[in-house]
Amino acid sequence: MRRNCSLLILALLFAGMPVVAQQNSLGDGPWFYDTYSPAAKIKVSVFAKGIKNPFGMAFLPDKNILVAEASGNLRLIRAGKLEDKAVSGIPEVAKGATAGLMDVVLHPDFAHNRLVYFTYVKGGKPPKGEDYYSTMAMGRGRLNEAETALTEVKDIFVADAWSSVKGGFGSRLRFAPDGKLFMSSPFRRDPVNPQNPHSDISKLMRFNDDGTIPADNPYVGNKDYLPEIWSMGHRAIEGITYNPLTGDLWASEHGPQGGDEVNIIRKGGNYGWPLVSFGRDYDGSRVSKVPVMEGVLLPELIWVPSIATSGMMFYTGERFPQWKNNLFVGGMMKGRVPGTGHIERIEFNSEGEQKRESLLVDLHQRIRDVQQGPDGLIYVLTEERNGALLVIEPAQ
Amino acid sequence: MRRNCSLLILALLFAGMPVVAQQNSLGDGPWFYDTYSPAAKIKVSVFAKGIKNPFGMAFLPDKNILVAEASGNLRLIRAGKLEDKAVSGIPEVAKGATAGLMDVVLHPDFAHNRLVYFTYVKGGKPPKGEDYYSTMAMGRGRLNEAETALTEVKDIFVADAWSSVKGGFGSRLRFAPDGKLFMSSPFRRDPVNPQNPHSDISKLMRFNDDGTIPADNPYVGNKDYLPEIWSMGHRAIEGITYNPLTGDLWASEHGPQGGDEVNIIRKGGNYGWPLVSFGRDYDGSRVSKVPVMEGVLLPELIWVPSIATSGMMFYTGERFPQWKNNLFVGGMMKGRVPGTGHIERIEFNSEGEQKRESLLVDLHQRIRDVQQGPDGLIYVLTEERNGALLVIEPAQ
Repeated sequence: MRRNCSLLILALLFAGMPVVAQQNSLGDGPWFYDTYSPAAKIKVSVFAKGIKNPFGMAFLPDKNILVAEASGNLRLIRAGKLEDKAVSGIPEVAKGATAGLMDVVLHPDFAHNRLVYFTYVKGGKPPKGEDYYSTMAMGRGRLNEAETALTEVKDIFVADAWSSVKGGFGSRLRFAPDGKLFMSSPFRRDPVNPQNPHSDISKLMRFNDDGTIPADNPYVGNKDYLPEIWSMGHRAIEGITYNPLTGDLWASEHGPQGGDEVNIIRKGGNYGWPLVSFGRDYDGSRVSKVPVMEGVLLPELIWVPSIATSGMMFYTGERFPQWKNNLFVGGMMKGRVPGTGHIERIEFNSEGEQKRESLLVDLHQRIRDVQQGPDGLIYVLTEERNGALLVIEPAQ
Repeated sequence: MRRNCSLLILALLFAGMPVVAQQNSLGDGPWFYDTYSPAAKIKVSVFAKGIKNPFGMAFLPDKNILVAEASGNLRLIRAGKLEDKAVSGIPEVAKGATAGLMDVVLHPDFAHNRLVYFTYVKGGKPPKGEDYYSTMAMGRGRLNEAETALTEVKDIFVADAWSSVKGGFGSRLRFAPDGKLFMSSPFRRDPVNPQNPHSDISKLMRFNDDGTIPADNPYVGNKDYLPEIWSMGHRAIEGITYNPLTGDLWASEHGPQGGDEVNIIRKGGNYGWPLVSFGRDYDGSRVSKVPVMEGVLLPELIWVPSIATSGMMFYTGERFPQWKNNLFVGGMMKGRVPGTGHIERIEFNSEGEQKRESLLVDLHQRIRDVQQGPDGLIYVLTEERNGALLVIEPAQ
């Protein structure tokens, strides 16, 4: 309990559990720790637990929180406690796959219209010889005042990302400052369609708030492209955020081994998957001989080895002044080693990335999303069978 | 002391210190650790301590160990204890820089000839207006039977890597199976000479065991190149080893931020520094717009963020059967964050890299070298002002 305990996590307070202060294994000899300087002191607590494989979350104006579970349930955390009963109204998700319900966001004018948007894995009739068929859809409904049900639920967009492959999902939603809505579509382990402009697989798509296509999308009126496409060649975007300094749209891309990326998204950009990648397939072979190609935009950040990037945010609050405008990226597993999930905090200057730090390594949890709460604290979803919503506060 | 303690380090036994078993901060709730599967159980102990900024080590046939300290002293660990008095005979190193003595290796026929090779920072007369001038030299001497002195010491090669810059060192020595000797030379923070074939800066060089140039070096007889050059465009090679399965020479290259590499070394190869790199300068700007260029060999492994790669080895012993033929690479600091040194263990299959794991993260030590001992255990040098030689053993 000397400098060691100040590592990253001062104390872990688990709701309903005994507090176990962090110790490490080094003894307190004077001859170690020569160069070790502790980072900001933080406290990590369990805000709510018992959430089954959460993927996304949305903060309601009354401080309650909606959480989307992969199983297909939309849950409500009311006054810090997970309600037993799911919020009703979510359409049935396709059964038998690794994901069902994915992200959830509120309309920018939710306070007046109570509109909630979500993405989910929608089933269809399997082709002959297959037992499964699905795509990604975006649904919208109105949350009742009691926050127990979505009403007037309908699909406002059904992506053309149909596949019999049961894995390879991943989808995020994010409203832009201008009220347009970005949705990322899954990769379905499809080696061809990420570069197919007639498919929604591995695309970033842009919509009006009713699911229609904005007239200023890059390929509107171009018969060689689907009009919803904003950018392409993404493997699986699982984090979307805005850089508060530049106004640029940033997206994290969950790659193969050594192929995780964060890209600055340009209208009509092609990010190369699977033609070029820094990564390797799971058998160890390189995805591409070289990681660059003419016409393909280079990532702003990569991770080698991969950390299995998930949700991300730029921190803009006041509670961690030293972290202002830092990027926080969730990671589910480093280098394919279970138990190595964490958060990466990245500092920038005008030239680019300056420094990275790994946070919450001691938790050994898959981090599926990291978001700034309305209170300026940092909220973290752990994607486990018995997952949790954690909250990070300053400890001094 | 449940699954948590089996993380990597079962118990840390510090010579002369109380044993403190590892604990973690998670409590023992049933709902965490869903996906966490512990790696091999190992025990890490301090073999010897009080070593000042060690850089390299050599295992003597009688189980004593020579350790090179950056300050310029060659030390002996005799029967597990660091001798107070340094081994005499090392030439004076250039004062005022960040390094002095660097690597130390034994002649393959040491048992008969007792020849010891070392690299050190050799001073010279500073140019006008400068207060410092140095290069890297390779010395050779004969270790007396008492192991207290090197005799007949002489420089067998003085590199043309002169500079007034006090940092930017790094040098390794490794005997090839055919008896030839590889030496890497430092980068001296020089932006030009890594690609200058008339300079030894940032080169890998190859010698006969008396420091003369082998006739089959790639540029012998070519007046456009120095004849000692084997390959070029390396920033700073700090690890050299042989792949036991392929026989290839592998070298780790200590890069800028996000620019660490492991390269498979080809005779006459150009590895591109500083024309191309995956990394960023310390101000955050990219070293090169793209990380590839025609004629430049791509690295086999990269680290983004960087880990400050140092010594490395392929494990070929019998004590860790599950780690056979795995590559172990020392890292001094991840992403420029102090206290994040560790070892990376990398598994390969015929296609390439399959998996990476971080070991010894809890130590918060700069790892300067990792070598397999004659006993099949893994020995680790921590490069701290009060550094140690650690030994890793199986714990079950």
